[in-house]
Amino acid sequence: MAGETYEVLGLGNAIVDVIARAEEDFLQRHGLAKGAMMLVDEQAAHKLYDDMGSATTISGGSAANTIVGLASLGIRSAFIGKVKDDEAGQSFAHDIRRSGVHFATPFAKEGASTARCLVLVTPDGERTMNTYLGACQNLGPDDVDEALVRASSILYMEGYLWDPPAAKQAFLKAADMAHDAGRQVALTLSDSFCVDRYRDEFLHLMRTRTVDIVFANEHELKSLYQTSDFDTALAALRDEELLGVVTRSADGCVIVSHDQTVAVQASPIDRLVDTTGAGDLFAAGFLAGLVRGCDLRDAGRLGGIAAAEIIQHYGARPNVNLASLAAQSGIVL
Amino acid sequence: MAGETYEVLGLGNAIVDVIARAEEDFLQRHGLAKGAMMLVDEQAAHKLYDDMGSATTISGGSAANTIVGLASLGIRSAFIGKVKDDEAGQSFAHDIRRSGVHFATPFAKEGASTARCLVLVTPDGERTMNTYLGACQNLGPDDVDEALVRASSILYMEGYLWDPPAAKQAFLKAADMAHDAGRQVALTLSDSFCVDRYRDEFLHLMRTRTVDIVFANEHELKSLYQTSDFDTALAALRDEELLGVVTRSADGCVIVSHDQTVAVQASPIDRLVDTTGAGDLFAAGFLAGLVRGCDLRDAGRLGGIAAAEIIQHYGARPNVNLASLAAQSGIVL
Repeated sequence: MAGETYEVLGLGNAIVDVIARAEEDFLQRHGLAKGAMMLVDEQAAHKLYDDMGSATTISGGSAANTIVGLASLGIRSAFIGKVKDDEAGQSFAHDIRRSGVHFATPFAKEGASTARCLVLVTPDGERTMNTYLGACQNLGPDDVDEALVRASSILYMEGYLWDPPAAKQAFLKAADMAHDAGRQVALTLSDSFCVDRYRDEFLHLMRTRTVDIVFANEHELKSLYQTSDFDTALAALRDEELLGVVTRSADGCVIVSHDQTVAVQASPIDRLVDTTGAGDLFAAGFLAGLVRGCDLRDAGRLGGIAAAEIIQHYGARPNVNLASLAAQSGIVL
Repeated sequence: MAGETYEVLGLGNAIVDVIARAEEDFLQRHGLAKGAMMLVDEQAAHKLYDDMGSATTISGGSAANTIVGLASLGIRSAFIGKVKDDEAGQSFAHDIRRSGVHFATPFAKEGASTARCLVLVTPDGERTMNTYLGACQNLGPDDVDEALVRASSILYMEGYLWDPPAAKQAFLKAADMAHDAGRQVALTLSDSFCVDRYRDEFLHLMRTRTVDIVFANEHELKSLYQTSDFDTALAALRDEELLGVVTRSADGCVIVSHDQTVAVQASPIDRLVDTTGAGDLFAAGFLAGLVRGCDLRDAGRLGGIAAAEIIQHYGARPNVNLASLAAQSGIVL
């Protein structure tokens, strides 16, 4: 396809992560389901923050993390998301732009503050997320820049966009524009509880070919097809006849298309610190491979390499240049 | 000594660190001296921030880091420092309190914003710091809580307090109160450029016994005595006849008193990531040993253990419970 200015455009909730270590009993005391993302209002967010430990603040947001990972892999990337013109919003914009991503969504000048995700990391490296959506609630179809969508080879969007009131309209509008320009549209299912909230709508997106590529982890896939059996869920995904990419934590990933099933091992790590962003960075590596014409196995390997980097430190933005890691693995992007 | 509520009280500049990786040429382009702390005004801080990479925000401040390290070692600790009642100031207060430190200095309600230190970490793990003092400029003698000073076994203060206009008055007032209550007073020389700015005053503090314990790294010690020869500088420190603690990065530390010279090796590390806080955390470990009656060698070992933890990740606040690390080393606190 000719005329792409960007290789991947992301659309998602623009969020600043506030990360602290927490013991298991902290989760219990606050009634938090380990590993999940829960939506909280501003008051609940304040209450939780007051009780959590000393924190590190790093820009986050699922699709935004993926797009920053893509930029770190040397992929021309852009992002659409809504922050307020406050300290956290300025940080978010600074960080994503200085990561090499084109980001030009207008700041909200009034209303709720920039979204925060209070991330609690337990000693097992698992993260439990509590999101105050704030300014993301102002993301709507008007924020979708048509020229940008048309100029991007792949449009990548998160299931979490079903949470704020108007963001799904932005999602659907962007998907239409992308397909009209002959581009591909990818969806990440985001979280098993998110799948539970919007199962029928996500299946509809897949079955109407509103999306061409679907990313899910094992839990999300099982939730989507309401089964506890992985193979049953995988077979159901294969029957959708789109490109399905399923991550399985330490067991690597499985990629299914109408005519292929490819399993790829996980990349080795020295030490698991914080799983925040594992799925986001896997998607970054995979999309980098896909957009640059790698085969599915190498795309899966790239996903594993990017995910392995992110889970060995706090936060979901890469600490090193991922393009160097990819080059070390022998995969030419 | 009876009646101590706290074992160590810190007095220092309350700062939030904004940390980003940077290549060597970034330092050159901005005329920054690697490894040093430079004071910048608000405008220069904004300009530098705009050009630096994606950042992680973590509470910092030299003496504050030391005090948090002490709390992590299980030492009853308190801190005096000035932040504004803004987002960064609220974070600073949250983080230090949630680390187990008593912190009750009134927030500045107006004037300059909470201090930031823009920290640039080069690939060699060295950090270069650019500090906008902001609300620290409002720290003064009125912030020194006499009951708190009298109730603390050791008062630990930073040379950086000579930078804001009124903080040295707070330092001198607190030192007087501490000595009046039979407590010990410790000074860290902070930075070789800081020593260069205030050499005569720091020597005066030492020679008038305004301080009983001095922490310095090799560069600061050489700057203090204006010599390029370490042994000459160490001999001069020994002649001051107070307790001198000198850190030498990978070469460990040397502790001198009127009748002893003790050299202690550095703790081994797997990977150097960011030296920010190495000296601060060394001081935490050493003071923990000192206040709990360890011998100088074990105090030096504790310093090394705490420093080794901090330089293996970004930021100058511990990522793990330091008391557990100390216990693993076999030193009973």
